Amino acid sequence: MENQKKVIGIIAEYNPFHNGHAYQIQRAKEMADADFVVVLMSGHFTQRGEPAIFNSHTRTKMALLGGADAVFEMPAPFSCASAEDFASYGINLFGSLGIPYISFGTEGASAKELLYLASLLKNESPTYQLHLKELLLLGSSFPQAREGALLAQMKEDGLSSDERFRYKEILQSPNNILGIEYMKAKLNYRSPILPIAIPRMGSSYHDTSLPKFQDFASASAIRNSIFQHHNDYSPFVPHSVLSLLKEAKPLPRDILCDPIFYRILMLQYDDTPLSHFFDVSHELSRRIINYIRQGSNYEEFITNIKPKQYTFSRVSRALLHIFLGITKKDMLEYKEGKLAPYARLIGFKKESSDLLTQLKKNSSIPIISKLADANHILSTSPTALKLLFCEVHAAHLYRALYYSCYSEELPNIYQQPLVII
Amino acid sequence: MENQKKVIGIIAEYNPFHNGHAYQIQRAKEMADADFVVVLMSGHFTQRGEPAIFNSHTRTKMALLGGADAVFEMPAPFSCASAEDFASYGINLFGSLGIPYISFGTEGASAKELLYLASLLKNESPTYQLHLKELLLLGSSFPQAREGALLAQMKEDGLSSDERFRYKEILQSPNNILGIEYMKAKLNYRSPILPIAIPRMGSSYHDTSLPKFQDFASASAIRNSIFQHHNDYSPFVPHSVLSLLKEAKPLPRDILCDPIFYRILMLQYDDTPLSHFFDVSHELSRRIINYIRQGSNYEEFITNIKPKQYTFSRVSRALLHIFLGITKKDMLEYKEGKLAPYARLIGFKKESSDLLTQLKKNSSIPIISKLADANHILSTSPTALKLLFCEVHAAHLYRALYYSCYSEELPNIYQQPLVII
Repeated sequence: MENQKKVIGIIAEYNPFHNGHAYQIQRAKEMADADFVVVLMSGHFTQRGEPAIFNSHTRTKMALLGGADAVFEMPAPFSCASAEDFASYGINLFGSLGIPYISFGTEGASAKELLYLASLLKNESPTYQLHLKELLLLGSSFPQAREGALLAQMKEDGLSSDERFRYKEILQSPNNILGIEYMKAKLNYRSPILPIAIPRMGSSYHDTSLPKFQDFASASAIRNSIFQHHNDYSPFVPHSVLSLLKEAKPLPRDILCDPIFYRILMLQYDDTPLSHFFDVSHELSRRIINYIRQGSNYEEFITNIKPKQYTFSRVSRALLHIFLGITKKDMLEYKEGKLAPYARLIGFKKESSDLLTQLKKNSSIPIISKLADANHILSTSPTALKLLFCEVHAAHLYRALYYSCYSEELPNIYQQPLVII
Repeated sequence: MENQKKVIGIIAEYNPFHNGHAYQIQRAKEMADADFVVVLMSGHFTQRGEPAIFNSHTRTKMALLGGADAVFEMPAPFSCASAEDFASYGINLFGSLGIPYISFGTEGASAKELLYLASLLKNESPTYQLHLKELLLLGSSFPQAREGALLAQMKEDGLSSDERFRYKEILQSPNNILGIEYMKAKLNYRSPILPIAIPRMGSSYHDTSLPKFQDFASASAIRNSIFQHHNDYSPFVPHSVLSLLKEAKPLPRDILCDPIFYRILMLQYDDTPLSHFFDVSHELSRRIINYIRQGSNYEEFITNIKPKQYTFSRVSRALLHIFLGITKKDMLEYKEGKLAPYARLIGFKKESSDLLTQLKKNSSIPIISKLADANHILSTSPTALKLLFCEVHAAHLYRALYYSCYSEELPNIYQQPLVII
């Protein structure tokens, strides 16, 4: 393996790309002394159960301008799935592409700490299981019960109260939790991938307003600012990306409301139970039907149908699965097969073409850089084709939503060339 | 049958109700010396393949204010079908309700003339068939070829050139042609129903602008005037109906564009061929997919996909069948069973309650006046229930379209009481 360049993988949504993302790419390269950063980016719909603010093509361009060397697409069934499935897909894809490092942001937790927590969750000792069960019976939410069970296990393992307090803190932060999922996937799939944890700068993930005295804002805060037509997000986005961001038109979540309603009406007419779709329980299905159209906007509708024990994102994702047509059966099929059976390239930096040569040499799965070739390349793998076409369908729907919003056409995903900058 | 009151049936869309309709009701009662007029009105979607300008409830109220005594609903599979199926459903419904007269507007043709033409079309003599085939082979459209074949048959039957010229004129007008379909259905189903033809007043069916010196305008012209927010349609609408018409919000055809596009995307993803739907030929299916979203509005899209030999309405109806989920298989099922297996009452005049008593006594099919009872009443007839629920589904979709248009809710069809004035 002479002349191999050092490659790091990052899993991201870039919804939209901001200073924190550029910092992470830069810092990951420095820490690992890496040559290239390969991004696995969510396709047209995100883990919050929403259309991405900009289409994949635009977000890919932003990522490349912001420091990424190549961008691959995570298809909708995984980009709109739980953190566990999202992470599992990512770890598997990087493994198949022969990428030895994964870098992710944390709220201060080290890779070693996350790996330790992941090992506890993977092993599920009798102590852990007992406490988890008890706490759930006592009415804790799943994350609360999981935390309590982990702490009980740590006590049994002889960790000091200071150490346990530290882990309790770690478990409070969404980026850490996603980090744990990466590490769990590494353990579950026996992946040799090496983690590079990068402490997140600035605002927390949950902040929805822009900060006053720093360069880093959360993607949520930036999205809000964009939707409110303020331009005050400018300092929080790399200069190279700014003009692109200003000319792109954002897609609001609310645009899903009517199309999802038509879809549900049609499914009811066709006698297709909503519970066929991934993440839609019988209870949620009942509530969707009972509360359909109640609420003055999509957010209120979701709040109305949300069972107490579910998160808002979980319900949003469930509705999105109905809209995109992702069934429980489909997800089972995707997960039973090779998790990432192909890699769809969306863009790369011209100056990083060495990287592509190296990836093509190392990859154990087909790299698809032209959608029209997919039928041929994946002809022996119907599940892989189905997975790919689920994202193609998602892109078509994204385009239809965009048209509903702006009466303007986005290019068809088949006519969209590779993004090369 | 003592004390029987004389009842006339009228089949209509009332899209919207205007002076011509009020005149027809009045004149029909006079001509037949009838006590009551029963209307069979299209549900939420019309024969032009569009949502009705107002929902059934509102149009029913207009019809009652304009002179009708009771209004029954024609369900979507027939209200959005060809003139032949539309007429067959109507003749069958009136037959089952025990209504002995049907009145319809003509462009001057007498019932006897229409019945003669209908008998020629029903019999399809060898002469007729030969000429029809030849003319079609020579490139005539179906209506042209049919006219030629009819004229050839008349010549053989010894009709003078004057008489043939008269029939040729009759065949040019849409109301006459619909009248022929009523008479064809009468013959096909051996219905004893007696026709009362009423010469249409004022503008022709095709006129899209309001006339200057008369009280009668076409429904198309009135719709155009409403959509353009002119109030110049006022003189052409009965005074009793006017305030209702002014406060109701009209639904434009264009509102179908996005929802139909989502529906087609989803069907493609689900591998459901568009040609499963009623009136969608393989050629049309191919053109829909090739031209999807091409055109600056719905009308342009339809013009783009329209095969040469199809009419605009035929293509609009085909798209509507896709949207409403009306398949070829469904239509076959509806047509193989009893054509009108129930009668859904939407409204009546309080002072005409005798009429309802008489209808209930004479009717050979269940009369449904409360939707919630349908499951029980039609429990032994799954096809009848399916037909009814197709209109219920159409009403739900109409409501969703209305919401898309106005961000306001129409009442749910289940919460809509009978219209009683």
